[in-house]
Amino acid sequence: MRDPVLHKLAALGLHLPPPPRPAGHYLAVMRAGSLLYVSAQLPFVAGQLQHVGQVGRDLTLEQGKEAAVTTALNVLSQLHGALGSFEHLASLVFVEGHVASASTFTDQPRVLDGASQLFHEVLGERSGHARSAFAPPQLPLSAPVMLVARAQIRS
Amino acid sequence: MRDPVLHKLAALGLHLPPPPRPAGHYLAVMRAGSLLYVSAQLPFVAGQLQHVGQVGRDLTLEQGKEAAVTTALNVLSQLHGALGSFEHLASLVFVEGHVASASTFTDQPRVLDGASQLFHEVLGERSGHARSAFAPPQLPLSAPVMLVARAQIRS
Amino acid sequence: MRDPVLHKLAALGLHLPPPPRPAGHYLAVMRAGSLLYVSAQLPFVAGQLQHVGQVGRDLTLEQGKEAAVTTALNVLSQLHGALGSFEHLASLVFVEGHVASASTFTDQPRVLDGASQLFHEVLGERSGHARSAFAPPQLPLSAPVMLVARAQIRS
Repeated sequence: MRDPVLHKLAALGLHLPPPPRPAGHYLAVMRAGSLLYVSAQLPFVAGQLQHVGQVGRDLTLEQGKEAAVTTALNVLSQLHGALGSFEHLASLVFVEGHVASASTFTDQPRVLDGASQLFHEVLGERSGHARSAFAPPQLPLSAPVMLVARAQIRS
Repeated sequence: MRDPVLHKLAALGLHLPPPPRPAGHYLAVMRAGSLLYVSAQLPFVAGQLQHVGQVGRDLTLEQGKEAAVTTALNVLSQLHGALGSFEHLASLVFVEGHVASASTFTDQPRVLDGASQLFHEVLGERSGHARSAFAPPQLPLSAPVMLVARAQIRS
Repeated sequence: MRDPVLHKLAALGLHLPPPPRPAGHYLAVMRAGSLLYVSAQLPFVAGQLQHVGQVGRDLTLEQGKEAAVTTALNVLSQLHGALGSFEHLASLVFVEGHVASASTFTDQPRVLDGASQLFHEVLGERSGHARSAFAPPQLPLSAPVMLVARAQIRS
């Protein structure tokens, strides 16, 4: 395993899942110039959502964070699938993080840090990204977390 | 009618509406390099929303899909208005699809496929796009569907 | 004060706050090619949210608009911090405007015009942007307004 990103994932006890297939008539990843647009990812593990419901009501902050890590793995898997290898990844650029939230829950940034920290641990200097956090009451399929990522290709 | 996109629309019994005007102090379409950012579009027909309310409560899935098709026509209209002709469109890039949803409704991807399929039928190979789906309880003006699209200009 | 943008702000009785620090493990601003992605901004004044709650329930339209202006100042501050000077700004490109909204409130565009008008007043021709408006019931930290902006660098 020569790819250092896959090596770092393995050292964390994680591995890339197969890239989830789109849920409709669109592409998992679309390229425009040197930008890669990754379709929204949910916390799927082997075709099933790892958790469902609202963080702060149905799920604890820790469970939300776990869902964010799982969703981040799916983002990485889509990038790997589209690029063939992380060698071609210049860097992340932007991550939208959506956390299905109880009306009393306001700690979306800590949930999403689960994803941002994983990106940092495995991509290192190439993990830099701006971010936006959202707190909707619900997401498609009742997922607790959804990530929409943009990345840059090495030219 | 030499533009094949307009021709395909006509064959489906559809035609491009005039591009809706912005609802405030912003531009309908903004260009950055070879990317076109289209402002959020709603299901307007002749200045009126075709449907209002939540899919799964006020509207059926089929009505939601119809609103998605109408909104997609407005996206196409904005692109046509900005470019002068679909000849200059390299491809779609990204579509954010927002579906105002009853709390029990989770089939946002099928609603949005109304838009993605129309894009495929009329733009063909230039319709490829990554997508994200959202399930908020409400959208501006109580619209059931809102699309935010990015496209690429042929250079 | 030779920067005309800072001069125009001062003429309006406004000044750039220090750029708010990210709320987690991400960057305030990320560059990709000639695009600048600004992380989501909230209506912070000196580290405190200027307002909290839903527009149309806890806040009036005017208070929402005031929050939009304050958030726009934070966007400008992040751009200034990243670029060192507004001289290097080619233009705004896209602004996502999220307004925490009572279920009966549908005038998100007027709230967001507070931001768009400020951009126009101080950036002039460089203020052009496409926009999308959202009406979620809640935002992180119970903020009433959140802006996510993209801009273009002068090359």
